[in-house]
Amino acid sequence: MTRIAVSAPATPITREQADAAQQLVADEFPEHSITFHDQCFMNAGHFAGTDIQRLEALVELANDPAFDAIWFAKGGYGSNRIAEAAVARMNHVARSKTYVGYSDIGYLLAALYRNGIGQPVHGSMPVSARSERGREALRRVLRWFSGDGSGLEPSLDGKTPAVAFNLITLAMIANTPLMPDLSGHIVMVEEVSEHIYSVDRLFFHLANVLPRVAGLRLGSVTDVPENDREFGQSVEDIAKFWCARAGIPYLGRAEIGHTPENRIVPFGLASPSTAG
Amino acid sequence: MTRIAVSAPATPITREQADAAQQLVADEFPEHSITFHDQCFMNAGHFAGTDIQRLEALVELANDPAFDAIWFAKGGYGSNRIAEAAVARMNHVARSKTYVGYSDIGYLLAALYRNGIGQPVHGSMPVSARSERGREALRRVLRWFSGDGSGLEPSLDGKTPAVAFNLITLAMIANTPLMPDLSGHIVMVEEVSEHIYSVDRLFFHLANVLPRVAGLRLGSVTDVPENDREFGQSVEDIAKFWCARAGIPYLGRAEIGHTPENRIVPFGLASPSTAG
Repeated sequence: MTRIAVSAPATPITREQADAAQQLVADEFPEHSITFHDQCFMNAGHFAGTDIQRLEALVELANDPAFDAIWFAKGGYGSNRIAEAAVARMNHVARSKTYVGYSDIGYLLAALYRNGIGQPVHGSMPVSARSERGREALRRVLRWFSGDGSGLEPSLDGKTPAVAFNLITLAMIANTPLMPDLSGHIVMVEEVSEHIYSVDRLFFHLANVLPRVAGLRLGSVTDVPENDREFGQSVEDIAKFWCARAGIPYLGRAEIGHTPENRIVPFGLASPSTAG
Repeated sequence: MTRIAVSAPATPITREQADAAQQLVADEFPEHSITFHDQCFMNAGHFAGTDIQRLEALVELANDPAFDAIWFAKGGYGSNRIAEAAVARMNHVARSKTYVGYSDIGYLLAALYRNGIGQPVHGSMPVSARSERGREALRRVLRWFSGDGSGLEPSLDGKTPAVAFNLITLAMIANTPLMPDLSGHIVMVEEVSEHIYSVDRLFFHLANVLPRVAGLRLGSVTDVPENDREFGQSVEDIAKFWCARAGIPYLGRAEIGHTPENRIVPFGLASPSTAG
């Protein structure tokens, strides 16, 4: 039984998306409950409410003993603006929770991980509940809450700590107060809607600023926009190129990304849900 | 009299663009000469030749006493891949030259400035020679080579050191071995073809990683792609927001950017050309 609460620290979802996620839980995972904070549906320019509204909603849910887990509603950009303030205000209740999301939510997962707060987890989000393929991604998370690890990223071995990030999110986190110590970790990265030259540029940055990590795995790189010229290297060639320059072991592909196949990566040492 | 040599450390230009720049110099600035390295026209995927070809051409021209200045042909992405190796191989001749370019060329300008090599200068590039407005931008650089400072960015006061960068270029440089010490500098930034949320994200990164700079000035932010939602803040509001959070004085606008109005910013203390 996991009591899940949902906030949207970046961009909003619709009532229909929330209803679909709620239906999925009621129909197939009656052992769990899911509660959407009204903040998920707020609008303030790009964001799901102002910085203060998003911050207050997240801190309220995280510090509330009525919930075991926070499932972030959606990425889309914005959690970086509140991540540092949010972790600073989290209490002992927040420290025993599980936090699930990915993409832009990586800012929060990083800050939580850096500060040893709960179990940050890379995983798909409620926004995807309206399609059958999206629901399959959500079932992976809900099963994991039930102690079923079948949706875990298959390379996780329980011995080497791992993290998973969107590539540009990790590049923006590096060297900020949100950055956890990734020494000795396997770092998985994925990207969406970026040009190939931008992927190359982000690897340049990370190759120069990452600490001595245990290795890098490349997730999917999807929805690459057309450019006026072919880059001339595949994304995997790019990852290998920069790993070689940086002395980072390139360990192959990872099953993460902006696709319904997106697998679960609990930060640190992979394990079944601690919230079950 | 400035003997100018041109290399393309990122993407190639066409013979027509080079011819137009050559014609401009011959017609209006006969006191200068301009020589294009054949590497400017090479193609290797995204780049103007392979990393080795671009590196060799740049080092050859920089170390050649027959030239006083290196004018970079074009930006477009790629100079980061050779910047560290290039400055490592530059000799005493290279150390007395002027280097002009901007946008992606910022990686090289940063590396040169960090290593105290010559006079790095933010300025428009030969690729723009085919239009009258582009030629006006080039005249600004050519006049500056002649000792005429009328094309300098107007806020430069000769007392506070300044630099100018493309926003994402500076974010990618930060904390890498290319990064100069910008303490006490006025930092001018401009951007092109990035979403507003991306501009906000880049300011988040820089606000967290820049040292104690003297202040920030915002250049133009042009060709912003349509997004599915309005961001809700102007780019100047974004700059002010992050400067306030970081304690960086926001000093107003700068006349730099991906437009023909792009003004000249010699890195460090503004002065007429040292190569004249």
